[in-house]
Amino acid sequence: MTDIGLAERPHEILRVGQGFDLAAVDPDSTPGFDGAKEDGSRLLAEYDQHLSDLQERLFAASRAGAQDALLLVLQGMDTAGKGGIVRHVIGVVDPQGVQHHAFKQPAGEEVMHDFLWRVAAHLPGYGMIGCFDRSHYEDVLIHRVRKLSPVAEIEARYDLINGFEYRLAGGGMRIVKVMLHISREEGKARLQERLDRPDKHWKYNPGDVDERQFWDQYMQAYQIALERTSTAYAPWYVVPANKKWYARLAVQQLLLNALQQIDPQWPVPLFDVEVEKKRLAGS
Amino acid sequence: MTDIGLAERPHEILRVGQGFDLAAVDPDSTPGFDGAKEDGSRLLAEYDQHLSDLQERLFAASRAGAQDALLLVLQGMDTAGKGGIVRHVIGVVDPQGVQHHAFKQPAGEEVMHDFLWRVAAHLPGYGMIGCFDRSHYEDVLIHRVRKLSPVAEIEARYDLINGFEYRLAGGGMRIVKVMLHISREEGKARLQERLDRPDKHWKYNPGDVDERQFWDQYMQAYQIALERTSTAYAPWYVVPANKKWYARLAVQQLLLNALQQIDPQWPVPLFDVEVEKKRLAGS
Repeated sequence: MTDIGLAERPHEILRVGQGFDLAAVDPDSTPGFDGAKEDGSRLLAEYDQHLSDLQERLFAASRAGAQDALLLVLQGMDTAGKGGIVRHVIGVVDPQGVQHHAFKQPAGEEVMHDFLWRVAAHLPGYGMIGCFDRSHYEDVLIHRVRKLSPVAEIEARYDLINGFEYRLAGGGMRIVKVMLHISREEGKARLQERLDRPDKHWKYNPGDVDERQFWDQYMQAYQIALERTSTAYAPWYVVPANKKWYARLAVQQLLLNALQQIDPQWPVPLFDVEVEKKRLAGS
Repeated sequence: MTDIGLAERPHEILRVGQGFDLAAVDPDSTPGFDGAKEDGSRLLAEYDQHLSDLQERLFAASRAGAQDALLLVLQGMDTAGKGGIVRHVIGVVDPQGVQHHAFKQPAGEEVMHDFLWRVAAHLPGYGMIGCFDRSHYEDVLIHRVRKLSPVAEIEARYDLINGFEYRLAGGGMRIVKVMLHISREEGKARLQERLDRPDKHWKYNPGDVDERQFWDQYMQAYQIALERTSTAYAPWYVVPANKKWYARLAVQQLLLNALQQIDPQWPVPLFDVEVEKKRLAGS
């Protein structure tokens, strides 16, 4: 057990580096964690306050001019648990400090610009935690699998993405990109649950079954995207996600690590505290 | 004890109606609730899940075309606890279903439009809970007290606001307007705390003490605004807020009531569940 309660640190062992092979990642595994579900859930709850505190510091520091922000990019197949991460991990911090956006199929003004334009419009400001449920990566994932753009254009996008993220990182943004990795069978079981429960029907889309036919092609598209866009300034992490409790714990720890790297400080007041105490007393 | 755990229902007893007198509201009081702080906090926690469930239903129903949204407008003097409501009441629901916006002094493009323009830009979509930390009411509050607009213009704004809110209500928005009412002395104590604690310094602004000189004028401006803009379609509630736990419980109950009025239903699937189960099984 280290200071974060895991035998090994998620930001080290889950990171996509040289020679990464998606097919070698077991979606059932829980890297760095030997405990059971109850232990994982307990640990998640224990670190909630820590995450919440760091978020408040991040926000406070920005009021005094600190130029730091955190962006979590969530990708994964249907039912991979993106929404659960938002609800159970991001959901514990003050809503005032979170900018969440779910990217759907582009429409209206969005299609009148390059593919990064709509992403730029939703970036978190300084002091904020941004959370993207899907992202500009759809433009190299579903676009590749379903041939929505010419191959040459998709090929160009990896560099465009890297350039874009490099600029953001240079401007003070910590970028944490997460692929929630479930197995095809787990995806099936989760869709089955959506069909079995009337309060889940609204989450089911018949198109989800069609998309399952392309599972292998999606995995290939992910492999290429992960290889080509996992950078020092915007690394990818592949989080085994068949066990929801593990995925939540891992993403929480990735965020904690990123915030610890920022190490936001309570700002030094720009006013004289003693003078203000006297003024307040007389008011 | 009624079904909501309070002797009387906040949406009835806190509502601003005919002959309302702000000066007669005791900021220390806890209308409809005889219990102690511990009881109030326990009750708040008990109803968290209820609020969270109703929010999910609201969101789900909108995916099937239901045209309902909820807007909470929070007003109050500095330190009244607006941020605490966002954190502790709104904060329990899924961040994906919340649109929060804190309105500051208008700047940039905002001042190139009428005072309602920027408000319109941040309205919650169908299925969402919107939360305004300050709002268009600043244009009849600080504008009146600090003479930022001609009196004739301010006078015209009450009707403009009512017309605007009438339109929103007609479009399916439930509007819950809350004034968090603290006493001048409580405001002083809370500013004192911000000066005493280094981790609170960032929340302190020397201008807050200047604003205290105008406390009585602010109360007059509130009285006028409450009288003239508490309508059947967008009522005001004055919530005694010297006790933070009470204010949070009361606002939570107001939101629960509004959501119960909407009564959102899980949508009926537009697909044939049995057909989809067969398709999924074969995928």
